[in-house]
This record gives sequence, structure tokens and C-alpha cells, in this order.
Amino acid sequence: MAKKIKKMSKTNLKAEVKSLRRKADKLRRKVGKAATSVPAAPAVSPLAPARMPTLPVVAGVEFASGMAGVRYKGRVDVMLARLCPGTQMAGVFTRSATRAAPVLDCEEKIALTDDGQGAAIIVNAGNANAFTGAAGQAAVDAITGAVGQVVGVPQSRVFSSSTGVIGEPLPHERITAVLDDLAAGLDPAGLADAARAIMTTDTFPKGASGLVEIEGETVTIAGIAKGSGMIAPDMATMLVYLFTDARIARDPLQKILSRLTGPTFNSITVDGDTSTSDTLLLAATGQSKAPEISDLRGRPAKDFAAALERVMLDLAHQVVRDGEGATKFVEVAVTGAENDADARKVAMAIANSPLVKTAIAGEDPNWGRVVMAVGKSGARADRDLLTIRFGDILVAEKGWRAENYTEDAAAAYMTRPELVIGVDLGLGRGKSTVWTCDLTHRYIDINADYRS
Amino acid sequence: MAKKIKKMSKTNLKAEVKSLRRKADKLRRKVGKAATSVPAAPAVSPLAPARMPTLPVVAGVEFASGMAGVRYKGRVDVMLARLCPGTQMAGVFTRSATRAAPVLDCEEKIALTDDGQGAAIIVNAGNANAFTGAAGQAAVDAITGAVGQVVGVPQSRVFSSSTGVIGEPLPHERITAVLDDLAAGLDPAGLADAARAIMTTDTFPKGASGLVEIEGETVTIAGIAKGSGMIAPDMATMLVYLFTDARIARDPLQKILSRLTGPTFNSITVDGDTSTSDTLLLAATGQSKAPEISDLRGRPAKDFAAALERVMLDLAHQVVRDGEGATKFVEVAVTGAENDADARKVAMAIANSPLVKTAIAGEDPNWGRVVMAVGKSGARADRDLLTIRFGDILVAEKGWRAENYTEDAAAAYMTRPELVIGVDLGLGRGKSTVWTCDLTHRYIDINADYRS
Repeated sequence: MAKKIKKMSKTNLKAEVKSLRRKADKLRRKVGKAATSVPAAPAVSPLAPARMPTLPVVAGVEFASGMAGVRYKGRVDVMLARLCPGTQMAGVFTRSATRAAPVLDCEEKIALTDDGQGAAIIVNAGNANAFTGAAGQAAVDAITGAVGQVVGVPQSRVFSSSTGVIGEPLPHERITAVLDDLAAGLDPAGLADAARAIMTTDTFPKGASGLVEIEGETVTIAGIAKGSGMIAPDMATMLVYLFTDARIARDPLQKILSRLTGPTFNSITVDGDTSTSDTLLLAATGQSKAPEISDLRGRPAKDFAAALERVMLDLAHQVVRDGEGATKFVEVAVTGAENDADARKVAMAIANSPLVKTAIAGEDPNWGRVVMAVGKSGARADRDLLTIRFGDILVAEKGWRAENYTEDAAAAYMTRPELVIGVDLGLGRGKSTVWTCDLTHRYIDINADYRS
Repeated sequence: MAKKIKKMSKTNLKAEVKSLRRKADKLRRKVGKAATSVPAAPAVSPLAPARMPTLPVVAGVEFASGMAGVRYKGRVDVMLARLCPGTQMAGVFTRSATRAAPVLDCEEKIALTDDGQGAAIIVNAGNANAFTGAAGQAAVDAITGAVGQVVGVPQSRVFSSSTGVIGEPLPHERITAVLDDLAAGLDPAGLADAARAIMTTDTFPKGASGLVEIEGETVTIAGIAKGSGMIAPDMATMLVYLFTDARIARDPLQKILSRLTGPTFNSITVDGDTSTSDTLLLAATGQSKAPEISDLRGRPAKDFAAALERVMLDLAHQVVRDGEGATKFVEVAVTGAENDADARKVAMAIANSPLVKTAIAGEDPNWGRVVMAVGKSGARADRDLLTIRFGDILVAEKGWRAENYTEDAAAAYMTRPELVIGVDLGLGRGKSTVWTCDLTHRYIDINADYRS
């Protein structure tokens, strides 16, 4: 027990101060060390872009965001988009067997061609309206019906998404209660705010845009996304909304979107878990002065698709950069497989391996785990033809560690925030590139006791 | 800057002591809190059996263990088993495309019937001799050749395994240097020590045994296993060695072993990663007085297989109980699938989901993540027919949370160290049970900077 201060002599007091100062220093070092081993939650992912890009206005669409208090209090959690008559809609949805009510509802509505009614999108964060039985569809009906009335489009043209906790009934009346306010606030410049409204565990809002010239006229593309955990194909992200003023019929629009989803949103993985709510919607308002895109093999279609793919890949990468607990952005580039499907198997086996991901978190160039992941992938592989690179560093070839490989060089490389793991199987021309992040203590922190 | 102690008055010294004591208390609390958030490495998994069972002697086999210093210094890291003439060997091996040199070597040797030569098994920990090119096979040849000479069996009957780091050349001369000592120490009662010699990140040695009466005579089965990370089918564990004195020809022995691997070692998963070294060997010495087991449909074969399955399942469960960082032992029991293959897909999707595993670590009854995993599994599932149970607690049915479900009851259940997640798909008679553990900070600690 500590000595009574009152009874201590001056000499003893001096000794006590000295000893206490030493103890305090020691404890401070301990606290510092502990703080290093479990870093505090960063407000924003260390891999986030420096700032959200300025998003251009897309003619024919307006946005509004608001606080419905679905689950979170005091934060924007609902967004509304109104699309002008003539807008064509395309979509890609999760193939989960337990997909949520709004996803099932969107799937039914997406194939319709717009013949002048316009459309609307309503999204809430905080509750996914997933695994909510018959009440789930009833909530979707209540919301889409009310949105249709407020913005003046038929219910069959109102698309809804919900993201957040699974299995809780969605308090849809909280959303319908704010629709009049949302409709009154619709603004062509409201897309960036909408990106904030759809966040759950995201640490930054995600937006991207692109312009493309078609026969001298500009076509604008802008989009937003949310997602940071439960991220894996298919679909690789939870919610993505893309808007363009291109003039294009529904079928070619859907064809382009479906084709571009593979190398973008379906080529990212954070934890290999797939959401029940994944939704990707692309709305083309037709308000650009550029001529209609009709022939998919023509230059205009190709230029449009290339610009759209850049926007989609940008958003997909932002989702990985916001991967729960991520400190490393990792590209896994597989070449030389017997075919593309095999290359993808290998890339995903590496990107989803907890042992590879924890090694990256520890900045450990543990390439043996890459060999392990190649081996377990199910793809054809020959140990003696395999080449592994970390960035430009040749790590392994001919069935063994490369002759000039040094652990020091590889360890220095692993300290970078952005890494490339290159694997060549030496068998054929199949290739696949996927993007992932590392697996850290923060992922456990976020998910060991989280209800979005 | 701290005040000079010498210049302080007694009053100031008293105040300083008081203030420093307060500061130290505060720091101690901080250190304590940090210590709670990342528990220190337990010496032994909290899920370990109270003690290692006493393993019976199996007539016809002797064991020795020793320190070869392959990678670890000052610990037992090599084990040798000598099997009497007439011993039949069966084996199951990883199907990894990048499997290690000793595995390839075992695969070539395993099909041979013993006609009186005997056999030997040599295992080292610390280096997996995987992805070591032509030098890998040379090391296997050097070791198995030397073992054959020392114990007097042909090299074609010497089976070797190596476990540990991948991609480093195996210093085989360190193993051959201790073979004479090992041979001199061969002991029928040495199995428990052998279990210790093959450990890497294991926190406890794993052994199990069983006896079975065949026509009044006893047949003994005993086995050891190692494995705690990089655990997934196929094969679900790294190294397993089973010994029995049963009299049985090679083909029926292999048939029984192959059939029993599915519901035991191939039904456990820690992290979904598959080792390049997974090896399961079963040696039958034929020294029991019980009659030969020949008809696989007969009662003796069935009794023998049942006893063997219990030993295999026991060892498989021990591997999960030693899962890296595990604090929960989890059974995932899926019923009502269209077929067994679909049931297995669902069970594995749940057991390997990082989101399910982190929820279990956090003792959070987050059943929505179970719904998610069912949905992503690829198996046929109907939301409205799905039933989910945590132990005896009915959690969800008819596409929604069960009427009488309370979060409190489920949260109380989740605090148990052993959990059962039951999923009925309501579609057919397909079923599958797998075992897994939770995903914790310790898993990250162990794997973010580990070279076995």
C-alpha cells in the first residue's frame, strides 16, 4: 500500500517523486505500445482519396437527401433521385438466394422500357429490409407508392434500395414522412450529398465522373457508391447509382452495364462475403445533344463504354480503399492461366485468403502463402512454371525462390500502402485482375460487435 | 519539463507525489484497458481438452522424437515411427496444385502393398519443404534413404512429412544427423511425445484412441494430429498419423480411410486456407489376434470403421479447438437441403464467413449474417422455408425472425464456449455438419507476422 504522504520525510519524498516519475515513464511507454498494436479507429480510411471529386450535373436528374431517422439519429440517411421522362434504366443485382425485398422488387421493374413516365430512385441506410418476410415487400410497396405520388411517376418506375441491418422490419413510415421535404429540395447538384446519405460503415463518400465526346457533343457520366464490408462478387459492392445524359435504348444500355460489371464491381473483394442487398442501377436520361447510341460495335458506343468503365472501376476501387479496417490497397494480377476463368479462380483465392491478407497487414513478404493460395484455387497450375512478383520484384520462379530475391527488398516493398501481387502461371493466355485490401485488427473491431 | 527534485520545497514535494500517484493510477488503468482489448497470447487454447489422453500402445509400431533444430532451437521437432513387417499403409493427401515434395513422394509410395518389408514414417516441423523446386525432392530422397538404412526398410517404404515455412530449402542434413539417436530411442510408448514433435503454431498436442472388439479379440487404434491455421478441406488438417494393430489388406484399408475423411477431417475449417502439406497416413500393423477384416459389409469391418471414425473425428475437433486465436468451438449443422452437396455448400459458406466468425467472436447473435451466408453459398435456398437455430433457440423461420425470439436469450447463448448453429433449408433430405471456430484478434496477431 502507498505510504501516507503526510508522514514522509523530505528525503523520502524526494525518493518517492523520483521513483514515481520513473514508473510513470514506464507506464507511458506501455500505453504508447498498446496504442500502436491496436490503432484507434481512423475517422477516414488511410487509403481514401484526398478529397471527394466535384461531380458534374447530369441533365435530367435531380437529387435530394434528408434525415429520416431509420436507425441513425441526426444524420442524413435517405436519398431521392428524380429522373426525367424518357430515362432508360439498367441494373445488375446480387444473385444471393436470400436477397432483400427491394432487390426482388427492382429486378421485376428493371426490364421495363420508359415511354415517357420518368423514374425515381429512393435509398435508405440503417435497415436493409432483408429477411423481413411478407412485411418486406409491403414496406417496399408503401415506399415506392408514396414516392411515385410525390414525384409524379408510376410506382412501377420507382426503384428502391435499403442497406443496413438484416432481419429487422423497416420502419417505412419514417421514410414516407420525409418525402414531401425531399421532393421540395430536389436539386440537380445534389449528387455528392446523396453519396453521404447512403453510407453505413463507409468512412468516406464515394463519387466519380467522366465526360465523353460523341460526334462533337459531350456526354456526362457521374456515379456514387457505398460499401466497405460484406464485399464480394457477385455483386462486389452494396449500392451503386450511375447517371448519364446519354441517349440510348434500354437493351444496349443493359448489355453495356452487364458486360462492364465483370471487370469492375465483380473484381473486387474485401472479405468474400456477399450482401443480400447489392444493387447497381444505371440511369440514362437522354438529355445530351449527342446522337443516340444504337450500334454497340460503333465508335460512339465504344467511347461511351470506355468512359463508363473508368467511372465504374474508380468507384469499385474506392470501395476497396474503404474496406473495413484496410491499410493496404492490393492489386492481384494473374496472367498465363489456361483460360480467364482459371486466372480469376487464382486471383480470388489469393485476394480472399485470410493468411495472405494478414501477411500483407503485417507487411510480411510471405510469398509461401501466395503459393498456398494458387494451390488451393482449383485452377490448373504447375509448380515449376509459376512466377510470383511483388511489384517489380521477382520473388519466385521455376518452382523455387528466385535467385536474386532478397527478403530485405521485398520487406521494404511491403511497407507501401499500394501493392501489386503478380502471378504468372506459365500455361496459357488466361488473365484476370482483382483488387482487395488487407485483413487487420480493425476489421475484427468493426465486425465483432456491429449492427449497421 | 519536470521540475528539478533538489530545488523543491517539502510542500511542493508532497503535491508532486500526490499528483504523480494520480497520474500513475490513470496510466495503469489505460494499460489495463489496452490489455483487455488485446488479450495476451494464451499458452494453451481455451478450448483445449483438460489434458492429453493417455494413448495405448499399438502392437507393431515404435516411436522416437528428438531435436533436429530444423528451425526451432531447443525443442523437439522431429519424430520417427518404425512399423513392423506386414504393415499396410493407406493415405489421403492435399489436392493442392502446389503440394509439397514430401506429399508428392508419399503419393507415389502409398499404393504399394507391404509384403514383409515393414515401413517407417519421418516427420519434421519448422520447414514444409514446399515450393523448393528440384531441391525439395532431393531432400526427401536424402531423408527417406537415410531413414530406410537406419531402421532397415526399403526407401520405397519410408514416408516423410514436413510442416512449417514454405519456400525455404529444408536443411535435411540436420534431420539425417539425428537418425541414429532416434533409432536407438524407438519405444512402443512414444506416441504422445511424437504428437509434441510435430507441432508448429499448435498450443497443445493432439492425440486420440479407441478400442474395438472383433470376435472376442481387441483391436487398438491410436492417432496424433497437428494443425491450427491454414486449415480447410481438402484436407482439413495438416498432418495426421493413425496406427492400428488390425489385420486388413491395403485396398479395404484405403477404402475405409477415404470414406471416413469426408465427415471428419474434410468437415472442419479454421480459415478456409488449405495447406500444401496436408497428409493423413493410416498404418495397420496386423499384430492384433483378431481375425482379418476383409468383407467391408461385414460386422467386423463396420465396427472397426466406426471406432476409427470416432478417433478421426476426435482429432479433427481438436484441430478446430486449437484454431489460431479460437475462443469458440462452433458446430454448423445444415439439414433440409435439396441434397448433401448443397447442404455442405451452405455449411461451409457459414463456417468460412469472416462476418459470421467475427460476430461469434463478439458474442453477437447476428443471425442476419447467417442468412447472408446461406444466400451467397450457391446452394438452392428459399427465404420463406429457411429455419435458423442457435442451440435450441429458434431464431428465424418463414422468412423472418421467429415470433418468440428475443435478442437477450440469444445473446446469453452466444457467451458459451461451444455453439451450435442449426440451419434447415426446408427443401429436402440433404444434410451436412461442419465444425469451425471464431475469428479473433489473436488470429491476426499470429498471422500478421508469423513464419512457422
